Amino acid sequence: MVNFKELDACDSFAALKKTPRMRLQELLTPERIADLWIPHAAGLSYCYAFAPVDDLIVEQLQALADEQQLIEKYRMLADGAIMNTGERRMVLHHLARGRLGAPVVWNGQDMEAFYTGEKLRFYEFAEKVRDGRIRSSVGKPFAQVVQIGIGGSDLGPRAASIALSRWAIAKGRAKLTPWFISNVDPDDADWVLSRIDLSESLFVLVSKSGTTQETLANETLVRARLKAAGLDADRHIVAVTSKSSPLAGNPHYLDSFFIDDFIGGRYSTSSAVGGVIISIAYGPETFEEFLHGAHEADILALEPSLKRNPALMDAMIGIYERNVLGWPATAVLPYAEPLSRFPAHLQQLDMESNGKSVSRSGRPLSYSTGPIVFGEPGTNGQHSFYQLLHQGTDIVPLQFIGFLTNQLSPDMNSEGSSSRQKLVSNLVAQMAAFALGKEDENPNKAFAGGRPSTLLVGDELGPEQLGVLFSHFENKVMFQGFVWNINSFDQEGVQLGKVLAKKALGAISKGESSGDARLDALIAAVLERTRGESS
Amino acid sequence: MVNFKELDACDSFAALKKTPRMRLQELLTPERIADLWIPHAAGLSYCYAFAPVDDLIVEQLQALADEQQLIEKYRMLADGAIMNTGERRMVLHHLARGRLGAPVVWNGQDMEAFYTGEKLRFYEFAEKVRDGRIRSSVGKPFAQVVQIGIGGSDLGPRAASIALSRWAIAKGRAKLTPWFISNVDPDDADWVLSRIDLSESLFVLVSKSGTTQETLANETLVRARLKAAGLDADRHIVAVTSKSSPLAGNPHYLDSFFIDDFIGGRYSTSSAVGGVIISIAYGPETFEEFLHGAHEADILALEPSLKRNPALMDAMIGIYERNVLGWPATAVLPYAEPLSRFPAHLQQLDMESNGKSVSRSGRPLSYSTGPIVFGEPGTNGQHSFYQLLHQGTDIVPLQFIGFLTNQLSPDMNSEGSSSRQKLVSNLVAQMAAFALGKEDENPNKAFAGGRPSTLLVGDELGPEQLGVLFSHFENKVMFQGFVWNINSFDQEGVQLGKVLAKKALGAISKGESSGDARLDALIAAVLERTRGESS
Repeated sequence: MVNFKELDACDSFAALKKTPRMRLQELLTPERIADLWIPHAAGLSYCYAFAPVDDLIVEQLQALADEQQLIEKYRMLADGAIMNTGERRMVLHHLARGRLGAPVVWNGQDMEAFYTGEKLRFYEFAEKVRDGRIRSSVGKPFAQVVQIGIGGSDLGPRAASIALSRWAIAKGRAKLTPWFISNVDPDDADWVLSRIDLSESLFVLVSKSGTTQETLANETLVRARLKAAGLDADRHIVAVTSKSSPLAGNPHYLDSFFIDDFIGGRYSTSSAVGGVIISIAYGPETFEEFLHGAHEADILALEPSLKRNPALMDAMIGIYERNVLGWPATAVLPYAEPLSRFPAHLQQLDMESNGKSVSRSGRPLSYSTGPIVFGEPGTNGQHSFYQLLHQGTDIVPLQFIGFLTNQLSPDMNSEGSSSRQKLVSNLVAQMAAFALGKEDENPNKAFAGGRPSTLLVGDELGPEQLGVLFSHFENKVMFQGFVWNINSFDQEGVQLGKVLAKKALGAISKGESSGDARLDALIAAVLERTRGESS
Repeated sequence: MVNFKELDACDSFAALKKTPRMRLQELLTPERIADLWIPHAAGLSYCYAFAPVDDLIVEQLQALADEQQLIEKYRMLADGAIMNTGERRMVLHHLARGRLGAPVVWNGQDMEAFYTGEKLRFYEFAEKVRDGRIRSSVGKPFAQVVQIGIGGSDLGPRAASIALSRWAIAKGRAKLTPWFISNVDPDDADWVLSRIDLSESLFVLVSKSGTTQETLANETLVRARLKAAGLDADRHIVAVTSKSSPLAGNPHYLDSFFIDDFIGGRYSTSSAVGGVIISIAYGPETFEEFLHGAHEADILALEPSLKRNPALMDAMIGIYERNVLGWPATAVLPYAEPLSRFPAHLQQLDMESNGKSVSRSGRPLSYSTGPIVFGEPGTNGQHSFYQLLHQGTDIVPLQFIGFLTNQLSPDMNSEGSSSRQKLVSNLVAQMAAFALGKEDENPNKAFAGGRPSTLLVGDELGPEQLGVLFSHFENKVMFQGFVWNINSFDQEGVQLGKVLAKKALGAISKGESSGDARLDALIAAVLERTRGESS
């Protein structure tokens, strides 16, 4: 029987809090560094030697994972239990990449068959676009594919597209160039449109509800530009939406591909939301490999032992750092330029999933939940915010990611070593520097050390490895949500802003009152100060 | 007489800590929202109505600013005092945009004349590139300008280039397209080089010392590609460097423009580091307007009264939030797509300047210094990490930035309002939602409120306004550094990683020992796991 209870009701958590904390500098031996590795899927490896946990703490974290029944809850979720309690929905992003347990049936529909069916439909569409059977309204082969979407319809697919853009060129799979339009600020869309030839551009409009304000505003803008260029807009746009949305089966789109309420935006890169653009740009086989890598990592995440399950170990170390050591943030540092927007995806994935203050049954919590997540690629970050990470007054645990092979470039030697060797040297040096520190007579040049990190490393970043990275963090966030006993799958926190924005928009566009004197005062003050300047 | 002392030695700080905290929901009245505005330079305005400070707290913050002699210290700095104590250097980024006080002379050199002289030299160079008098080695006019630099030689100039790219097109000033290469990962450089025609590309190599590892590695790569394309690399690269660097006056560059040790990387957008590429891409008059806006804001920052000095008010509110309320992070939220990389610049500016644990005289501090800074443009962030900001267990103070006019686009109506109106509605609605919250019977749909913000708003984002934004945050960070009594102008925290990276590189490229058994163990473990995969 699965039992849902708060973290502070767990005996194993009480024990964990009483356990003496470790000094990382003393813990770290060459043997530990050689040993504390867990094999991941698709040839990746996970190292937790630089995390502030000894054998006893790992045992207690295992006990906590067992007491909170994390694997059982994951299996329930995969089998179609209503784990998104507030919205009364199943959570099926795993199923979009492969089945982990029992068949999931909803209203007589086998859900695996639904996701696979849509996938095969957009694979066929992608092939037709790529080989020129589907062409633009003036008969040109499409050369650009532009996703219009925001939030999860933008961040994950964009991070994945950038991560594979060089790889796809190197492998000869890059056929169309992917672009993204997300912000309601029209300077976003017009910038993209100023750089592409509309007569050879295909747009992928992504909105589950078909009512997302930003996405519809951008569609209006794009349709106006297509029309002004003498093109038939209806033959330049496909929709990715739910079957019940106004966009579904609408003759104003070339085609529609379906998603449903059981895959949340931030988990949707594995669905048509990510699949359509990646299949069109880099080929269906590339997306299939991405799904395969993610599915392999999902299978590995079913393993109950922390020491054999990197996503689970990573999750539990994060719990220890957040709820025992009290650290409020974590930095993601990919030593790989292709992962330049992966931290932005993780920011949504983690902060939108676990930035919650009430339990899944609505009880206010008395402990910390999801941390702040931020990051930039290394070595760039070293020349930016690492100063604070090394010598600031707060400790920020670090998640390093690295690869040993370039995607696009033959390696280039300068001063006796290659660029890739320099990159990897910096990665390992930073892990050591953060953990070990350095004494110095000059306090300004001293490093306290004791700043922990973990590492995900692989030989090459291709679609399979990228799938593993997506799965790893999704499952980490899911496990942490189970530990905190929260619902990681809704986002009620975005609603109030939406409601007030609607009221503010009435006030700004029609001069009405918003119905709130303070919001009215703010609008009046802003307009007064800016109109003054423009006149 | 100016006195340097720690924050916890200030009587006014002791008083501030004892003062009752405010409930923002009760503090916020329409009158407060109408009144608590400070005019900024170049038509911008700063609103602090949504900050958690009442009249008494503002008075006490004024007393603290006075007790720590912030304006006196700023004047000292502007007049050429050795404010970068550890490195025994003056701090002269303000002077690069205009003189604020006494002439600054160093070794018989008037420093204002030095900065102006270099500026006029690169203005002339930029004009010659723009009108085709300086051409590529095969006689083509240059169409692309690519900056090679990292850290401050990348983040600020890149943020500024993106911020003005649409504006420059709209104003007919966009002549060359700016690009940036920073990461030592060769997948960065090769990606940029795959998108441009090398025969019409000019490179700006930026390294103060002329020895930055990443920048030299990228130069090697770029030179190899230029040569392979049959071009004379020496006629495609200009250097921005110090007079004593190996790059200075070197015949392998078209020209060199000089910077010096008195402007740190993160403050260097106002120098040749930002000036060369912006002048070439968008014209010297654009860079001149940027400097003018920054200088106007620098003058305003000399004002001793918080209520008339937005950078000072912003700094002191930040101190209150960090050292009294205890919040560890702050988010920057520009509702303007052109500012998409401005948060990354601020991340370096703030975290590298104030992520320190010892006082300017080397004493360990017992209070918190610089916060974590992160952010993404609105409305995108709303669909990403705002869930945590609204309903997470920690409070994160927010810095909103907004503009009322598009840079590039005519505004586009959909559903009865324009995109820009939608953008501004979202901005004001979020400020209200964060502060006011909302009660709800369902705890999962309730918002506690009390989440504070400040706002910088203007009609249009052009180079003058951008200069104000750069100056505002530089001066805010400087004032906070003075309050904490730290040296905001060095970055000793990046040294240890550099030293260990050199040792690691020897180990990786030559198979030597790094001299540290733990670093060796990490290198061996990483290579073992990745070689296994690649074989």
